[in-house]
Amino acid sequence: MTNTITYKYESLKSFCEDAFCKLGFSTEDSKIITDVLLLSDLYGIESHGMQRLVRYHKGIEKGLIKVSAKPEIVFETPVSMVIEGHDGMGQLNGRFAMENAIKKAKKSGVCIANVRNSNHFGIAGYYAKMACDEGLIGFAMTNSEAIMVPTFGRLAMLGSNPIAMSMPATPYPFFFDASTTVVTRGKLEVYNKNNEPLHEGWALDKNGKGTTDASDVLKNIVAKAGGGIMPLGGEFEYSGSHKGYGWGMVCEIFCSILSMGITSNHTHIGGKGGTCHGFAAIDPAIFGDSHDIEEHLSTFLKELRESPKREGEDRIYTHGEKEVFAYEDRMKNGIAINVNTVAEMIDFCKFVGLDVEKYLGDVNLEQLKKQSSYE
Amino acid sequence: MTNTITYKYESLKSFCEDAFCKLGFSTEDSKIITDVLLLSDLYGIESHGMQRLVRYHKGIEKGLIKVSAKPEIVFETPVSMVIEGHDGMGQLNGRFAMENAIKKAKKSGVCIANVRNSNHFGIAGYYAKMACDEGLIGFAMTNSEAIMVPTFGRLAMLGSNPIAMSMPATPYPFFFDASTTVVTRGKLEVYNKNNEPLHEGWALDKNGKGTTDASDVLKNIVAKAGGGIMPLGGEFEYSGSHKGYGWGMVCEIFCSILSMGITSNHTHIGGKGGTCHGFAAIDPAIFGDSHDIEEHLSTFLKELRESPKREGEDRIYTHGEKEVFAYEDRMKNGIAINVNTVAEMIDFCKFVGLDVEKYLGDVNLEQLKKQSSYE
Repeated sequence: MTNTITYKYESLKSFCEDAFCKLGFSTEDSKIITDVLLLSDLYGIESHGMQRLVRYHKGIEKGLIKVSAKPEIVFETPVSMVIEGHDGMGQLNGRFAMENAIKKAKKSGVCIANVRNSNHFGIAGYYAKMACDEGLIGFAMTNSEAIMVPTFGRLAMLGSNPIAMSMPATPYPFFFDASTTVVTRGKLEVYNKNNEPLHEGWALDKNGKGTTDASDVLKNIVAKAGGGIMPLGGEFEYSGSHKGYGWGMVCEIFCSILSMGITSNHTHIGGKGGTCHGFAAIDPAIFGDSHDIEEHLSTFLKELRESPKREGEDRIYTHGEKEVFAYEDRMKNGIAINVNTVAEMIDFCKFVGLDVEKYLGDVNLEQLKKQSSYE
Repeated sequence: MTNTITYKYESLKSFCEDAFCKLGFSTEDSKIITDVLLLSDLYGIESHGMQRLVRYHKGIEKGLIKVSAKPEIVFETPVSMVIEGHDGMGQLNGRFAMENAIKKAKKSGVCIANVRNSNHFGIAGYYAKMACDEGLIGFAMTNSEAIMVPTFGRLAMLGSNPIAMSMPATPYPFFFDASTTVVTRGKLEVYNKNNEPLHEGWALDKNGKGTTDASDVLKNIVAKAGGGIMPLGGEFEYSGSHKGYGWGMVCEIFCSILSMGITSNHTHIGGKGGTCHGFAAIDPAIFGDSHDIEEHLSTFLKELRESPKREGEDRIYTHGEKEVFAYEDRMKNGIAINVNTVAEMIDFCKFVGLDVEKYLGDVNLEQLKKQSSYE
């Protein structure tokens, strides 16, 4: 069992906002970064919330992330935008891109925006949700450091390349957010921490053989030594490996290719990040009555949830339901943070000069430090 | 081994064009239908070429497909279109939709079109390729009779819901065309004909248990008795079943939801087809210099093909390469047609009143009929 400490949403919000301010971000920018990170924790996607703080902090220290960078629109039409991210925080570039895409989509009906030279932007779903909250269909995606091995290959050439889509529906919006790899690097990290063997069809070793050794795969990814994670569909064509690889390509095209940015296989080399993102906002009203369309979707989602279950299962989820339940639970009962992550947050407090006890309470530091993997 | 008869492309073209004319389609419409069907055979996707003739012929006989229907634009903006298909041939509705989407995309930069009340339209890739041939990015997708069981369910609720995307690149365009199920119904039919057990993770029986019995699954799909094919990602969340199911939903939204058409679970019920399609055309020039963008994609595709191969593999394919090779081979050496399909084509000739020998040559009918599964 992993030890956790539970914090109220408001406490983590204050901590995070103040910490990013101390790093040099404006109050407004700190609020945006915090909002993206905490939505991830509220949705139960631990790997992209507080657990990411250490990577952002190190990214800023190393100069990969430029605190003072401002996103800049370098090319635009009424239905499109290319944004130069100037190595800024992914969350700020992402939010800027989607806000502007929404504005254009409200006028033109649709807008596709992409961003080059950015950094990790958190969960793709955050930006898709921004459009959905405005009554639009939203898409968001990002490339990343190469971790996906193409079908028949043995070197990671694409990122986890998640694609998210959201669209208004009742009682919950449709909210689909998934990597185009069979699993994420975060999942491998969890298996590694728990010393569990990976499932077959998840990963290759550096020689391109299937492996269940998480630690080995993670080391090879960092060292760019070969091997990596398989596309959705696994190792072989019979299980659809080439399809996941194809979805990874779709993501790459809307992120790095159309923006003339850096493809996943060239990011994070030589002190340069170079992450690229893609966004789209579409107004359902360009197809008819938005309300009728929303009802039509809601009916189909209900039919799916109410359709017969397979043996041993008592419910069918529609995409976004689990996130809604997690959100409600965590807003009410607080967010349980892994002790290793709390130790990282404490170090982060000290690094930026925040009063640990004020933000994170009187936790047993010595005890936590022993359990922390933070270096 | 399956017996085949090899025909020249031109012979099949004459046969098919004349046969559809005899069914009541105009010369122009027959040419379009033929072009879609034969591209499938030329690309090596047998299940959607000549092998489909019998289904179209039966669809027309049953009144599911209306020969005289004309697609009608019922809602449009500079970036969108909703088309009423009036139960016409899917190929005619599809081609009409993509032609108009291309026109609008050349003016507005992007156009999303969907079609309701249509029929099976052949391979989605045909329409994506239409946009690509005009220098645009093309998307095409379709819902279908329900065959995909949602994760944790035991009743087919979504179609095979293929999504295709194509974009210009050298020496081959990017051309990705894949069902969002782990495999297609056509693949199950092949396993059934060969009496081979299915792979695990492909299908469920009517009680929602994993099964390897192709014949049973196919029967249950037709009878709507339960069971069906799994989404890309297979049976379980650990292998990404919910992701394939999510892609199936994306397809459904752009086909049946936005067009206010019939969702897969309600199509092909009570003498009504109701298939819906979705299309998009995007001009890369709305992001910058089209030529630079095409070169950027071509470079990445080359890097993928040239990246290290896993043990036992000597090449990595990029999407669309296999189709280009198949096309070149078949245009040169002819198209090998399964004898069962030839028998169907002979019956089709007789039904519409075409001279069998003139179109299909002096084949040994008795011998073929014995081998045919056509009823």
